[in-house]
Amino acid sequence: MSLAIICSGGDAPGMNPAIKKFVDYVYKCNKTPYFIYDGLDGLIDAKIKKAYHSDVAGILHNGGAIIGSSRSERFYEKRYRKKAFENLQKHNIDKVVILGGDGSYRAFEILSKEFCISFIGIPSTIDNDIYATEYCLGVDTALNVIRHAVDNIRDTASTFKRAFVVETMGRECGYLAAVTALSSGAEICVINEMNFNKNKAAKHLKKELKEGRRYILAIVSEGTKATQDIKNWLEDEIGMQTRITILGHIQRGGNPTVRDRIMAFEFIIKAVDLLINNTQIQKAVGYEKGRFIDRDISEINSKKYTIPSNILRDLRFLD
Amino acid sequence: MSLAIICSGGDAPGMNPAIKKFVDYVYKCNKTPYFIYDGLDGLIDAKIKKAYHSDVAGILHNGGAIIGSSRSERFYEKRYRKKAFENLQKHNIDKVVILGGDGSYRAFEILSKEFCISFIGIPSTIDNDIYATEYCLGVDTALNVIRHAVDNIRDTASTFKRAFVVETMGRECGYLAAVTALSSGAEICVINEMNFNKNKAAKHLKKELKEGRRYILAIVSEGTKATQDIKNWLEDEIGMQTRITILGHIQRGGNPTVRDRIMAFEFIIKAVDLLINNTQIQKAVGYEKGRFIDRDISEINSKKYTIPSNILRDLRFLD
Amino acid sequence: MSLAIICSGGDAPGMNPAIKKFVDYVYKCNKTPYFIYDGLDGLIDAKIKKAYHSDVAGILHNGGAIIGSSRSERFYEKRYRKKAFENLQKHNIDKVVILGGDGSYRAFEILSKEFCISFIGIPSTIDNDIYATEYCLGVDTALNVIRHAVDNIRDTASTFKRAFVVETMGRECGYLAAVTALSSGAEICVINEMNFNKNKAAKHLKKELKEGRRYILAIVSEGTKATQDIKNWLEDEIGMQTRITILGHIQRGGNPTVRDRIMAFEFIIKAVDLLINNTQIQKAVGYEKGRFIDRDISEINSKKYTIPSNILRDLRFLD
Amino acid sequence: MSLAIICSGGDAPGMNPAIKKFVDYVYKCNKTPYFIYDGLDGLIDAKIKKAYHSDVAGILHNGGAIIGSSRSERFYEKRYRKKAFENLQKHNIDKVVILGGDGSYRAFEILSKEFCISFIGIPSTIDNDIYATEYCLGVDTALNVIRHAVDNIRDTASTFKRAFVVETMGRECGYLAAVTALSSGAEICVINEMNFNKNKAAKHLKKELKEGRRYILAIVSEGTKATQDIKNWLEDEIGMQTRITILGHIQRGGNPTVRDRIMAFEFIIKAVDLLINNTQIQKAVGYEKGRFIDRDISEINSKKYTIPSNILRDLRFLD
Repeated sequence: MSLAIICSGGDAPGMNPAIKKFVDYVYKCNKTPYFIYDGLDGLIDAKIKKAYHSDVAGILHNGGAIIGSSRSERFYEKRYRKKAFENLQKHNIDKVVILGGDGSYRAFEILSKEFCISFIGIPSTIDNDIYATEYCLGVDTALNVIRHAVDNIRDTASTFKRAFVVETMGRECGYLAAVTALSSGAEICVINEMNFNKNKAAKHLKKELKEGRRYILAIVSEGTKATQDIKNWLEDEIGMQTRITILGHIQRGGNPTVRDRIMAFEFIIKAVDLLINNTQIQKAVGYEKGRFIDRDISEINSKKYTIPSNILRDLRFLD
Repeated sequence: MSLAIICSGGDAPGMNPAIKKFVDYVYKCNKTPYFIYDGLDGLIDAKIKKAYHSDVAGILHNGGAIIGSSRSERFYEKRYRKKAFENLQKHNIDKVVILGGDGSYRAFEILSKEFCISFIGIPSTIDNDIYATEYCLGVDTALNVIRHAVDNIRDTASTFKRAFVVETMGRECGYLAAVTALSSGAEICVINEMNFNKNKAAKHLKKELKEGRRYILAIVSEGTKATQDIKNWLEDEIGMQTRITILGHIQRGGNPTVRDRIMAFEFIIKAVDLLINNTQIQKAVGYEKGRFIDRDISEINSKKYTIPSNILRDLRFLD
Repeated sequence: MSLAIICSGGDAPGMNPAIKKFVDYVYKCNKTPYFIYDGLDGLIDAKIKKAYHSDVAGILHNGGAIIGSSRSERFYEKRYRKKAFENLQKHNIDKVVILGGDGSYRAFEILSKEFCISFIGIPSTIDNDIYATEYCLGVDTALNVIRHAVDNIRDTASTFKRAFVVETMGRECGYLAAVTALSSGAEICVINEMNFNKNKAAKHLKKELKEGRRYILAIVSEGTKATQDIKNWLEDEIGMQTRITILGHIQRGGNPTVRDRIMAFEFIIKAVDLLINNTQIQKAVGYEKGRFIDRDISEINSKKYTIPSNILRDLRFLD
Repeated sequence: MSLAIICSGGDAPGMNPAIKKFVDYVYKCNKTPYFIYDGLDGLIDAKIKKAYHSDVAGILHNGGAIIGSSRSERFYEKRYRKKAFENLQKHNIDKVVILGGDGSYRAFEILSKEFCISFIGIPSTIDNDIYATEYCLGVDTALNVIRHAVDNIRDTASTFKRAFVVETMGRECGYLAAVTALSSGAEICVINEMNFNKNKAAKHLKKELKEGRRYILAIVSEGTKATQDIKNWLEDEIGMQTRITILGHIQRGGNPTVRDRIMAFEFIIKAVDLLINNTQIQKAVGYEKGRFIDRDISEINSKKYTIPSNILRDLRFLD
């Protein structure tokens, strides 16, 4: 029996520890591990190779993914999916582990309806926006990269009377922004999930500035497209010089944290076990209430993740 | 109603976020927060002070604990405990949040049997050795500090043919060593919980060295007192020059990770809610299966923590 | 004799070590140290206070400046400068150490022409754009903060076929961008000091992409205002999806590096010695060819810094 | 013309940037670069390979040295040196760049007296103990790794009343310990170059502890073998519980700082230029008063490095 692993969509820290565990664990189970390079595009182009222990030596602490990733437009044409399936058949691979987000899950759901292919998705995206899991691979590393950046800004913020806007990733989901605002004690958090009450904020912040507040820190989720608007509001309405930081792909890089490494290992073990012990399976694994679970891919792809209430509860000026 | 917070025993990263949340949340509940400085010794010496928001501004990213901590011998004499209780009475404090380990829990258990005092313990120790909680405050930061150190050693290890022994903290419990060995892919892990099989290890490692292995990394838990012994064994039996790193209190310091900040907030909210909603209570909070729980202090103090099997499962040469 | 220290303009890592050394060294010389808080605005508003050892305990590793800073418009009106001088007189301060850039030097040059005041400027700006010094306080820390960010981006860059634009600070001077491009091996560097040859770059990069290059990294100095333009060019002309990171004030924060701490100490000793040993002096210190030197403020303020040729020599596509 | 590069002795951060620049610059000069793997042992065993640009892609941010290093006993026997020379001849290599310390310089000095071989040493050791250079490759990274560790310890130190002993590397030279003590404001520094006056220290520290000092930080250089002794003295004489940290090889690892990368580039350019423009040359390069210089190997190997007085001047209790 041969199993392959593929990264699809944006990369996430923790993918390399997952890839290493995949190779080690598949061999331990007496099966043969394969790499699919460069995501769905690579699958179409037959970039498939047997994996060895030596391929994954010394990669635990590297960000990114040694097998590459991609977003593929071609995969949404049937003739390319046929090619993808044939490439898998050539290596007798009928079971695939996917490191990616729900876009990648959907791609494989389509493939599996047309061809006989089993797969398990492992939620891997720093956006943390996938249904049926409290945790996506890469989130802990991303949050700590952002933390370092925000702590640096606080250093300089307390020297000056100034406002700072930090834009975090998160196209569909404000999770990174919300957790950052909570854990760094930011005054302002702007996410799509809730309404930022400008009037209330203006009233309170002006009062606090009079009483001695030296600076204001605003965390804005990329998906709101509100970064420039909040800067203007801080300058015009609150009356503070304001500087913007756009973290961008810094957030996707970096040495995976211990949590992301351990989660990677557990996700892989769960996924490989499911693939080996089932003949036809299309699922994704997840982490809920301290346990590793699995759900049908159709359920995950039809529902939406919501940020836990304890994260949103203590953020200011949201209603 | 007045509530106090105290740090007791070894400090842990995350104590400052907990202290900040304590002050903010107690005020939010319309109660009065107090600091007890310098642990049980400070309590005996009446180092108690009303806390203000301004005391806790800008401390989220600082390691250590702004209110100090201590280990107290005097507390085990009744006359000093009486003094401690009287000091609390002077400020009308009959409810205390304890940031500490099981030693601190035991001290307050004794106090509460003699005097009318409610308390909630919050498990705070990088050793992660407290019953009825999967997580103790500070562990995530400590693990990531160790990770940085071990990643640095790997850089130099792969240049030379050498062995490295890294001693981690953990007097009673091998958790830090075990998670470090797992997440860094160390070849050797020595903890009190399991037997390190030297014969098996020698046989396999010698074979691997012949096949091209360049270095060996051993993680040794402080509590085993085996650091020097493992170095000697690596030099005499395996035949490799070996270097020792003793991390010591580096592991206790450092900017708290996002996880330690969020856990600190949740532990505090749970603890303060319990104190406010109960008249007589002697408990500790914990984190189990993704939920925040509480248990009677007598139960916690009579039982022992065990490392989860998924951490130990994949470590080599242990039986 | 009383000496004061002031921070003026943008803050820089290393200011706190300088402030600490100022207090310790002035006392060692049997003089009295004073703090001027919140820059030139604070000087006008009489925010002056005697400094003590206890004020500067434990600040060596903090970014920012504990005495605050500001940019002052009022200082350019004579009546406010008169007030500033009178405030100094009240404390018998006629000697001042300035941590700032050439804007701050100019402000004090004006003041010293009107009133009897000695001062020494210490070049403190991450922009590294001051004449007669190879090194400005804060530069080493800023460069290493940028390095961490760029190393993170490389992780994710090598996973995808993508281009990344990183905007560094530097309004007048491309030093940060140039050193970053050199030390991180970036393909593209855009600074005001030289012309970025788009045609040449396009020709070479397209060839390299055909031969297997996976990503392109461009470092753009803020002062060029070319960040968006380079992104568009990379997408339209080179044909690669491109992501922007704007580091902003992350670069000003952070724990000062060892080099910035040691430089801070040396600059302060040189500056205080000059003030104590001269009755009328208006100078700035600098670092040239491995030695600490001083120059008349009029000379520094009339000339312009140029980036050393060895930094620019090996950057690609510049002419 | 063919030039080779070799690492010899202990590794140092900055070796990889040097190796990358060597390959790029030698090709730019239209010569052929070679790698000698695994130090002098590898040279004896004919581990020599032509180097390509692709060998050095993406290594700027890695600690260690991709070509390995070693300490060789065999090299001190003439028959092995003959073998080493013959291996070089096979590839027409008569010019070598050495990344190493003075031990490595001496080895090549012997070789060059017996056989016709030119070489340039680049001082590469975190010990910073080589004559005729103020800077050795790797020192800046090592100092900043130590800084992080010491800053972490301060966090926890200020929580407790405790003393901490940190042992830094430096077998022959106390440079790392001295700069660390200075830049971290440690109370105690123990190095071979000066006498630590215990009586004076005890008198002052006891007084300060009475006045409120909470902790003592001692930096001890490995070469003094005094770590345990200072711990005992702090416990017995000063009366404080004391904890030891032995940093070990953490100090040799880590992502090279910007300074180490830039120094690596400059050292390599200087060394390669010298080798190309001279027919018979046995020298080492160095950094003095802001300039890159070169000296005859015989001079360097016969003299001793001394720590600059400005580093030692402000350390306490040394005489």
